[in-house]
Amino acid sequence: MDSLAVEEPLEIRLRAGGSGPAEAFVTTMRTPGHDDDLAAGLLFAEGILAERADLLDLARPSDPRIDPELKENVLVASLSDAAFARSSVLKRRTVMGSACGVCGKTSIENVLPKDGPPIASSLVLSSAVLVALPERLRQSQSVFGETGGLHAAGLFDAEGRLCAAREDIGRHNAVDKLIGSFWRDGRFPLSGFVLVVSGRAGFEIAQKAAAAGIPILASVSAPSSLAVELADAAGLTLVGFLRPPRYNVYSHRRRIRGGGPGSVEKKDASIPSDNMP
Amino acid sequence: MDSLAVEEPLEIRLRAGGSGPAEAFVTTMRTPGHDDDLAAGLLFAEGILAERADLLDLARPSDPRIDPELKENVLVASLSDAAFARSSVLKRRTVMGSACGVCGKTSIENVLPKDGPPIASSLVLSSAVLVALPERLRQSQSVFGETGGLHAAGLFDAEGRLCAAREDIGRHNAVDKLIGSFWRDGRFPLSGFVLVVSGRAGFEIAQKAAAAGIPILASVSAPSSLAVELADAAGLTLVGFLRPPRYNVYSHRRRIRGGGPGSVEKKDASIPSDNMP
Repeated sequence: MDSLAVEEPLEIRLRAGGSGPAEAFVTTMRTPGHDDDLAAGLLFAEGILAERADLLDLARPSDPRIDPELKENVLVASLSDAAFARSSVLKRRTVMGSACGVCGKTSIENVLPKDGPPIASSLVLSSAVLVALPERLRQSQSVFGETGGLHAAGLFDAEGRLCAAREDIGRHNAVDKLIGSFWRDGRFPLSGFVLVVSGRAGFEIAQKAAAAGIPILASVSAPSSLAVELADAAGLTLVGFLRPPRYNVYSHRRRIRGGGPGSVEKKDASIPSDNMP
Repeated sequence: MDSLAVEEPLEIRLRAGGSGPAEAFVTTMRTPGHDDDLAAGLLFAEGILAERADLLDLARPSDPRIDPELKENVLVASLSDAAFARSSVLKRRTVMGSACGVCGKTSIENVLPKDGPPIASSLVLSSAVLVALPERLRQSQSVFGETGGLHAAGLFDAEGRLCAAREDIGRHNAVDKLIGSFWRDGRFPLSGFVLVVSGRAGFEIAQKAAAAGIPILASVSAPSSLAVELADAAGLTLVGFLRPPRYNVYSHRRRIRGGGPGSVEKKDASIPSDNMP
């Protein structure tokens, strides 16, 4: 007998203020647990939550006619008027569509903050600490060993101590749960942390890291071209193929100290080298 | 130097008939290539395309004011009136939201055909053929060996011959590209094929296989609880952890002949055994 990784849909509904009608915003397939963190992290990554006061409340729907089992798959987020307005813009953009956001360059421009510098952090990580992180993340995974079906994301400090980790059947969800828990605790920006993910580092993972102000993102697997471009533009140090003793650094190498014999810095020919540190 | 897996957004726009305004339907992050197959497969999996006559045309946007680079990331699908109406319902459901589709049971009911039997196929696969498939899929992956960043999906016949394979940075996209290419060639339903995927088998992958009438879905990694429930209800044989010489069969084992010494049938305790074959 083996145990399966549980997958259930979670519908996130939004409403303005503490009352009024709630509208469905998004449904994501996730592993139940830490749903509040997931919702907060997702809404933050989407740019809907800017400050803590934007999230008034997170609760299961109160309608007594709704099946109790179903309620576990719905969360209602009560937002400030400003945050709700941002969600409406986002929803209209998704529905109406436009030429914007459809090339990689525009995708990156949409993600980068318009009124601030790229990621600012003095964090420096030693190569010896970096290569130890995947095994520490793996040891923290309570479920992975049993089912093999869950992705993990962990936040580590400069000394390589694991500060928190989350698991989910979806890579994005694991990152949203992790970042969302720190956002709800008011521990932003995450300029002193390294984010390690068990899966690949695509554009959206890099986007979530950059939005949270995380200076170093490390993946045990491959990054995508667009993730590298975003990391380069945002000031994010992107490490890929972190398989001790080797790893690749794709952007902003200055934060990794002491390459060691196994490390290799990789650059993609398509990225102008004058954008590299 | 290593080469990165390319990731770029693709926006799929829909319009009724051969002219008229096109509205953005969805944007997916994908590896460019086989975009027509991706769009057709995605629209089929969503239930918008039912028969071949529903897809009148797939083309890049014709507006000369649009940047050429951007055009490569947009596809306009011209649909029959019936298909366009189905897309409008889907869009409205997404936007308006409802209690439907928010528990696993409802998700499965929404996926299963209302007016037909579950997957009907007399396909039987020998255990010896089954365990050879992952290596054959891997050999077909031209890019994976270089970047490690692409997922693969392949369709095999009962003798284990690879009929077609597709790669993409997204697991779902690889399956959509593969199924979409067969749909566009009019080779539906795919009742004589085995679908092998390099990643995990979640609900949406099982949904795509079931919608295409594929009788056997095999993953080298873990299935989710909801994927197993769907496979069980749809008559889909779901194989997980296909790592020769071992594999697990989670549903409808009758299509796998000759378990061999290494194979193990796994059942989840949460699934009533009277639903099992």
